[in-house]
Amino acid sequence: MHRTHTCGELTLADLGKTVVLSGWVQKSRDLGGMTFIDVRDRYGVTQLVFDTADDETLRSKARELGREYVIKVTGRVIERESKNPKLATGEIEIKVSSLDVLNAAKLPPFTIEDDTDGGDDLRMKYRYLDLRRNPVRNNLVLRHRLAQETRKYLDLQHFLEVETPVLIKSTPEGARDFVVPSRMNPGEFYALPQSPQTFKQLLMVSGFDRYFQLVKCFRDEDLRADRQPEFTQIDCEMAFVEQEDILNLFEGLVKHLFKTVKGIDLGEVPRMTYDQAMRLYGSDKPDLRFGMPFVELNDILKGAGFPVFDNAELVVGINAVGCASYTRKQLDALTDFIKRPQIGATGLIYLRYNENGSLKSSADKFYGSEQLQQWAQAFGAKPGDLLLVMAGQTDKVRKQLNELRLEVAAQLGLRDKNNYAPLWVVDFPLLEWDEASGRYHAMHHPFTSPKPEDIPLLDSRPGDVRANAYDLVINGTEIGGGSIRIHDRELQSLMFKHLGFTPEEAQKQFGFLLDAFTYGAPPHGGIAFGFDRLVAIFAGIDSIRDVIAFPKNNSGKDVMIDSPAPISDEQLAELSIAVK
Amino acid sequence: MHRTHTCGELTLADLGKTVVLSGWVQKSRDLGGMTFIDVRDRYGVTQLVFDTADDETLRSKARELGREYVIKVTGRVIERESKNPKLATGEIEIKVSSLDVLNAAKLPPFTIEDDTDGGDDLRMKYRYLDLRRNPVRNNLVLRHRLAQETRKYLDLQHFLEVETPVLIKSTPEGARDFVVPSRMNPGEFYALPQSPQTFKQLLMVSGFDRYFQLVKCFRDEDLRADRQPEFTQIDCEMAFVEQEDILNLFEGLVKHLFKTVKGIDLGEVPRMTYDQAMRLYGSDKPDLRFGMPFVELNDILKGAGFPVFDNAELVVGINAVGCASYTRKQLDALTDFIKRPQIGATGLIYLRYNENGSLKSSADKFYGSEQLQQWAQAFGAKPGDLLLVMAGQTDKVRKQLNELRLEVAAQLGLRDKNNYAPLWVVDFPLLEWDEASGRYHAMHHPFTSPKPEDIPLLDSRPGDVRANAYDLVINGTEIGGGSIRIHDRELQSLMFKHLGFTPEEAQKQFGFLLDAFTYGAPPHGGIAFGFDRLVAIFAGIDSIRDVIAFPKNNSGKDVMIDSPAPISDEQLAELSIAVK
Repeated sequence: MHRTHTCGELTLADLGKTVVLSGWVQKSRDLGGMTFIDVRDRYGVTQLVFDTADDETLRSKARELGREYVIKVTGRVIERESKNPKLATGEIEIKVSSLDVLNAAKLPPFTIEDDTDGGDDLRMKYRYLDLRRNPVRNNLVLRHRLAQETRKYLDLQHFLEVETPVLIKSTPEGARDFVVPSRMNPGEFYALPQSPQTFKQLLMVSGFDRYFQLVKCFRDEDLRADRQPEFTQIDCEMAFVEQEDILNLFEGLVKHLFKTVKGIDLGEVPRMTYDQAMRLYGSDKPDLRFGMPFVELNDILKGAGFPVFDNAELVVGINAVGCASYTRKQLDALTDFIKRPQIGATGLIYLRYNENGSLKSSADKFYGSEQLQQWAQAFGAKPGDLLLVMAGQTDKVRKQLNELRLEVAAQLGLRDKNNYAPLWVVDFPLLEWDEASGRYHAMHHPFTSPKPEDIPLLDSRPGDVRANAYDLVINGTEIGGGSIRIHDRELQSLMFKHLGFTPEEAQKQFGFLLDAFTYGAPPHGGIAFGFDRLVAIFAGIDSIRDVIAFPKNNSGKDVMIDSPAPISDEQLAELSIAVK
Repeated sequence: MHRTHTCGELTLADLGKTVVLSGWVQKSRDLGGMTFIDVRDRYGVTQLVFDTADDETLRSKARELGREYVIKVTGRVIERESKNPKLATGEIEIKVSSLDVLNAAKLPPFTIEDDTDGGDDLRMKYRYLDLRRNPVRNNLVLRHRLAQETRKYLDLQHFLEVETPVLIKSTPEGARDFVVPSRMNPGEFYALPQSPQTFKQLLMVSGFDRYFQLVKCFRDEDLRADRQPEFTQIDCEMAFVEQEDILNLFEGLVKHLFKTVKGIDLGEVPRMTYDQAMRLYGSDKPDLRFGMPFVELNDILKGAGFPVFDNAELVVGINAVGCASYTRKQLDALTDFIKRPQIGATGLIYLRYNENGSLKSSADKFYGSEQLQQWAQAFGAKPGDLLLVMAGQTDKVRKQLNELRLEVAAQLGLRDKNNYAPLWVVDFPLLEWDEASGRYHAMHHPFTSPKPEDIPLLDSRPGDVRANAYDLVINGTEIGGGSIRIHDRELQSLMFKHLGFTPEEAQKQFGFLLDAFTYGAPPHGGIAFGFDRLVAIFAGIDSIRDVIAFPKNNSGKDVMIDSPAPISDEQLAELSIAVK
């Protein structure tokens, strides 16, 4: 037997017991005639004591143990002299009577501590050692807990977890597919799913009523910190529902997760239309941990002869509350920030509402004191505030000011990771114009239904058609999105037409779904949550890589197992393919 | 709002309520001035009534509804005149006051009934309609229930569900891999995992202690009824355990599933060594729903001048209890059965123990009555029994007699699908000889540990080395298998050597695991259950295809979505591959 207890459970209640523990040597120190060793497992750390006075040979053996050795000890639980209140087992120690080395360990390439000295590359190569560290393991324990609670909630709501296939068919819509050559069907390929979208809709046609799945999805896109070629979704679909039903049910899921996993009462999730979100925050995923809404100033600031504003489509600003004392240097830094190529703004105008009540703007020469007053009033500003204003083409300037708003909030410490501000954004546009291809694309996906009252606009003003589509945003991150789907063959065909499909192409790619709609398809809709992102939000970290056990790097490589890798000529021949 | 209730929940307690129901038209019949319609959803069926006397227009509209139309009705719950006790809602019906057709339906290509008129091909092409049928949906509801209960049990036992990657590296060991060309790394490929074996072992090296995952696995093998290119495993691993710990814990899982999902108390699972199983049943997965063990007869029947027995390595038989009355024709049919090419036996000798006590054998002329008595006694036979004996080379004749034993039991109705006989088979051989490649292969996989006391035999008699490997068998089907793993680099290298790897090949393919073993790897072991097979066993069906929502056919095709399919030249070019 390798153990009677874990390294995290013995307390004063166990005094006198003879126990067997197994685990890793965390650290070791000598003190007089004694050696103290912390032995670690997933559950905790327990102090072992070896005393020369009891057994000199045993104590010598203990002194030879290196860090990360795997050991098994038998001993008696005794009370500790100097207790460690930070440790669950901190009141006891084990007086060891026998010691087995189950496995020796080389010196790890980095320290197995909460703050390691290992760089990213080294930690990825030896991911199995990195996973020994508490912060990394805790993320995966959190992930486990979130997965189990998600299933528990959805099961109670009568959802059925149904596995959809991983080997499916490549479609031209959406991101790039990973493909899998078929040996049995030479020249043909499977594709890995970007989402189980059509399958979950077919399950609704089948009458499954409520479906969910925690499912791996795949996108062959160039990678960033928050993107992985394989990622996990909480994928859900319901029949006989309207948008309101879905928002309520999944608001319930998110509240359940916060309550059970973090002990946080999330309260009601506010809602905002896409238009409001863009107008007030310049983003379809506004961070609502803080206010700082946009204030539009065309009426007040245009026409005063200041060309930057006069020539702009939109003049818009935010109130950096309490920042009137910002120095010239700080203001210059903000200007530099918005001028960075990835933001691309040209300049920033400020109005300082000094503590003494005076107003001072970088555009002073164009505005009289009355206008400055109006300007300040538009923001409801108070002495001590700093108003930051930008101008330009509406869509662009909103995006730029969004970046500035987030940056200022970060500087003010308003983006606290332990504070959670969820939000439903609703009424997304159905289509968005794509400059590159010169046509409209589906903003969500081609199966999203337009609002019935907007269908007449499809021909005349397609960009104005609103969809029954919604996103759940937390702290400025989109963690879920969905829609009420089209369940009518004619409307679906019309959508494909507007997306540039010929009827033949639509039938070839999605004929099975169009056909399914003719055999009695119920109204249905659903949502999918990015599970990796959800876990990252709960963990209070930025990169999803840190919540994935074995992630890939930005080149799509797993440097631990050295994948991808060449395959043999025999394999290529069997698959009827060649490398070019 | 699409519904206030489902179609499965209204009872007399709801009398007088005004309700809204949505669902599919299951059937419709006219009676006098009334039309009765059964409306169906996942939860049940409710009878609707439309009365000309109340509303002639509405009733006419109801008469026009076809099968599988999707409708929404509002109406009042009233008591039914002729109640249907078989239906949960059988005491009430809905007097409909308003009817909406949510979607029309073409006539389905086969009937949506428990016993459908649809053939396999048609049902696969319209799988979304096949999934509407109760037996198919019930299998998937069962699958859901088993998945949730599996997670519940393992979570309570402190297992963490950790997702391992789907895009990994191809290895030469085992079955053929599906591969995925890497766009970002031209000429290189990912492989889809046949199992997460090495990753779960690394998680043990990481100190995760207890891991599980319900995980999709992939094998590019030619398909049979019980094989699919993608299948699901309950994959588990534990650290600091011995075989006994694993058997006990997972016996607990299987008992929990039978108890909670089927209400069956499974009792203690018996154990048998591989050697015993082969000797007593000629199979490493004996069906123990019935006895009929093999009886070896070399001592009794050899040396009597009967060449069939005298020249055989093994003479062995079974007792077909109560079958003495089998006719000549029945016996000939059994002989024909074992002579079929896939079994390949040459003949069958019988000894009939007649009800009157007389003994009659097809080998009478070689044996006197005393020998016939001994023969019968060896089986503990009684009047009315029929002893069936075969002879030949030991391994072959055991396999052949195993087939006969199963056939006879089937004829006797001893293989009842509602009777469950589980069994642990332990002490599997570590290696098995492969004629084709002229070398030993790992019977389980290369990471399985040999029994320490057998390690000295590795060089001299490799075929006799026993492994710490075990299978869980239910009703003659292997539903799970596992082993205690090697956790020592030297022993793992020795295993690779015996499997024909050069040290360089071993390092190239499995270097990450060999390296991991040098940084403090704990003793560990695990098990994986074939989840599709487990569900099929619970459902009492033979093919795993019937417990998978969207299975592939024997050519690996999904005929519903028409996959696999050719991909575009642009895709091929991006992936740096060509079709040959």
